[in-house]
Amino acid sequence: MPTSAYNNLVERCSEIALFNSTSSLLGWDQETCLPRKGVSYRAEQCAFMKGRAHHLFCAPEVDRWISECEQVDSGEDPVRSANVRDWRWSYDRATKLPEGLVEKSERVRAHAMSAWAMARKENNFPEFQPHLETIIDISRQKADCYGYNDTPYDALIEDYERGTTTAAVTELFEGLKPQLREIGSAAARRSEEVPGDVLGGHYSEAGQRDFNEKVARAFGFDFEAGRIDTAVHPFCSGLAPGDTRLTTRYDEKDFCSSFYGVLHETGHGLYEQGLPPEHHGTPAGNSVSLGVHESQSRLWENHVGRQPAFWQHWFPVAREVFEPLSSRQADDVVAFTTKSRPSLIRVEADEATYDLHIVLRFEIEREMLAGNLAVADLPEAWNAKFKEFFGITVPSDTEGCLQDIHWSMGALGYFPTYTIGNLAAAQLFAKVNEEIPGMKDDLASGNYARLLEWLRRNIHEKGGQLLPTDLIRVATGEDLSPRHHLEHLHNRYLSPA
Amino acid sequence: MPTSAYNNLVERCSEIALFNSTSSLLGWDQETCLPRKGVSYRAEQCAFMKGRAHHLFCAPEVDRWISECEQVDSGEDPVRSANVRDWRWSYDRATKLPEGLVEKSERVRAHAMSAWAMARKENNFPEFQPHLETIIDISRQKADCYGYNDTPYDALIEDYERGTTTAAVTELFEGLKPQLREIGSAAARRSEEVPGDVLGGHYSEAGQRDFNEKVARAFGFDFEAGRIDTAVHPFCSGLAPGDTRLTTRYDEKDFCSSFYGVLHETGHGLYEQGLPPEHHGTPAGNSVSLGVHESQSRLWENHVGRQPAFWQHWFPVAREVFEPLSSRQADDVVAFTTKSRPSLIRVEADEATYDLHIVLRFEIEREMLAGNLAVADLPEAWNAKFKEFFGITVPSDTEGCLQDIHWSMGALGYFPTYTIGNLAAAQLFAKVNEEIPGMKDDLASGNYARLLEWLRRNIHEKGGQLLPTDLIRVATGEDLSPRHHLEHLHNRYLSPA
Repeated sequence: MPTSAYNNLVERCSEIALFNSTSSLLGWDQETCLPRKGVSYRAEQCAFMKGRAHHLFCAPEVDRWISECEQVDSGEDPVRSANVRDWRWSYDRATKLPEGLVEKSERVRAHAMSAWAMARKENNFPEFQPHLETIIDISRQKADCYGYNDTPYDALIEDYERGTTTAAVTELFEGLKPQLREIGSAAARRSEEVPGDVLGGHYSEAGQRDFNEKVARAFGFDFEAGRIDTAVHPFCSGLAPGDTRLTTRYDEKDFCSSFYGVLHETGHGLYEQGLPPEHHGTPAGNSVSLGVHESQSRLWENHVGRQPAFWQHWFPVAREVFEPLSSRQADDVVAFTTKSRPSLIRVEADEATYDLHIVLRFEIEREMLAGNLAVADLPEAWNAKFKEFFGITVPSDTEGCLQDIHWSMGALGYFPTYTIGNLAAAQLFAKVNEEIPGMKDDLASGNYARLLEWLRRNIHEKGGQLLPTDLIRVATGEDLSPRHHLEHLHNRYLSPA
Repeated sequence: MPTSAYNNLVERCSEIALFNSTSSLLGWDQETCLPRKGVSYRAEQCAFMKGRAHHLFCAPEVDRWISECEQVDSGEDPVRSANVRDWRWSYDRATKLPEGLVEKSERVRAHAMSAWAMARKENNFPEFQPHLETIIDISRQKADCYGYNDTPYDALIEDYERGTTTAAVTELFEGLKPQLREIGSAAARRSEEVPGDVLGGHYSEAGQRDFNEKVARAFGFDFEAGRIDTAVHPFCSGLAPGDTRLTTRYDEKDFCSSFYGVLHETGHGLYEQGLPPEHHGTPAGNSVSLGVHESQSRLWENHVGRQPAFWQHWFPVAREVFEPLSSRQADDVVAFTTKSRPSLIRVEADEATYDLHIVLRFEIEREMLAGNLAVADLPEAWNAKFKEFFGITVPSDTEGCLQDIHWSMGALGYFPTYTIGNLAAAQLFAKVNEEIPGMKDDLASGNYARLLEWLRRNIHEKGGQLLPTDLIRVATGEDLSPRHHLEHLHNRYLSPA
């Protein structure tokens, strides 16, 4: 492989990474700090940075360098080969988008995110509607630029889960739907005996912060290379090497809401902190896909954090922090955190109902993008489908179609990765249990070192070297399938206690 | 004036402003949020952004555009003329610095700031020493690039207070020194009767936040276009239009420490929020100098905030928030906040002693830069001078030569602007009282509208249209002089109560 061409690409990527990491900070800051009147200028900053990065990557010399590398790639260095393969794919894809569209998209997005936050706060869908219309329009333009066979959704989903198609997701979801509804109904019936207020009481925000951080630290999150802040929407941002930031929001009546949010984001954060720093800026140093990212967050949140063994260790600690727990048992927490019932908010949904929230969003965004559902009709469509899936009447758009940030970010095609992540989490955790005997004892004693080491070695350190489907196959010895996830849900919700 | 050349310059400046405002966010975030392990990469980001901005401004076409504008400048549009004059000055200055030095300087600075924060926390000067040595070295290189007649300090002070020279500052300070020492001694004697613990008690951080924000809001600070955060070193950053951020730190034994810090930073913030947005990015839209900036902060902090009339309005409010004040009178607060005694920390020093802190720093940094004082000898030199000026033995470097952030930022030549600001604040406030009858009644009723309007009209909205000395002369009808400041100190500290 010609050293100079390859080195030129690495150097170019490190410049682009400087722009992208700075864009990430602009974005993080917008979600956590930015005053309202700073939004317009922030939109210009984001557009400018994204535009510059796009311009640097789409330069003709980049094409030439990639070609030079391709011509002589012997495959003997898997990192180099992976980088070249990914650069080619990204270059061919990125150069299909005109620079003006990239900048416009960023500008629209920054404004839309701010409008969404306000509309959600005030339950005012019409305030968000024109922004979403523009976003759908720009997303279609992007899809047209990228090109697609069946439906514009195909062109966009590749940004989040490379190698996946709308047809594959539709087929997967159609197969899952009846099983999920069955599991959901049965789980809800069984959960009826757990009182909704079994953990009722006041949980101070300060106490929640303290407990959240204790557990995140025990999992292995490095607070010298990261932090947790408050934001409307919980997220994780791997801003730069040594700087991974999580966000959460607090409900003083229910510590579990923030707690499981933080376990989830910690899973994302551990992945970011475990990426190989020596490849930063190149594909081999990046997380490989959103689905794989989500597998990490769901694994820590659900497979670790909702086990009875988990609370065996942490309940005494929690009881020190939270006064209301003094009259409760560990079993109460386990019962509460594995209680299932149809609910309004995706990020707070239990495992038995979660995926149906995803299917709902997928079906809606696919139809909006295809032009079969007008943005103006979104609330009605959302509410009707919600009634159909969950039997619940949605009381407000804030708790309905305005609850998620994704569409305001222009992230259409993102939602399916949550369910892909659930499948992968179950499959990975099954493999962990197979390969590491006594995992349950580790969890019961609050020892996560062996689990984290396994994830580091099999997932994190691989960065973007393999395609997502290959990464899961290599790590678990089988193709990604819904089997382990459905088995997990059965065990958790439907097997005799 | 050739429209296209002028418009090209405005456009180029708006690109540069996108880089600079993003750099400001990187800097703000480093002071308030950045985890320790993120520092190295942050240094790269800062260097990259500054380098890009420098590169864009130093391009040969910029020189050509400025020349074209100069050739036909009729002076009929004062904003355009001011911009062209300033661009020329800045261009000629900026192009003297090689791009590599600009980037290196930024990189060094980001590391040094982080090392300073750690060294200050741990009272460990040797940890900071090599960083400061590099900074002095780079500052000398910069001075050599800029060129100077007498001393390298001349070349640097221009960055902060254009038109000022080392000789002028030395002369001013030599004249002030005996008077300041005399005022300081007399003020300290008079203050002996005020017990140091006259306001003793516990002031919760939450209460302080609340009270600080109430007063800042009443002054006119727009919290929809700004915020207040916690940082080791209090500062104000005008990040972007609609986004001005202040920082403070809290001492739960003394609410005044944070409170006056916030009044000070609010003064800076009001200036930033009052700059003409239509000229953003060009010199006419910028603050004109650090001395003028400081005049705004000192005016609100001292001339407004330490008046008996001020506390007439705010004491009842403070008493609602702070339990310890329930047994105190407004007079106690006035006595405490105008109490004078030699003290260790500049940002907490009273007005009667403050300027001596500045003189001390000026003399030391001038000598370090001239090569007459080695960085290794800084603590000893600091402590000796401190003993001489204030009669105090400095107990630790944390409370001595490590207390200020400026040198770690590479900001040599900055300190004199604090005293220039004090002089200007007194002169401006004297003029305000002359032009607005009943100002004291306004303050006694917590009404700041007329004062703010005067400052908006005479200072803020002028942006960088006039040179600092001209701005003060036009606003007050006389050249800047120490007269009003000394008179103010006499009235406050030495006139019969």
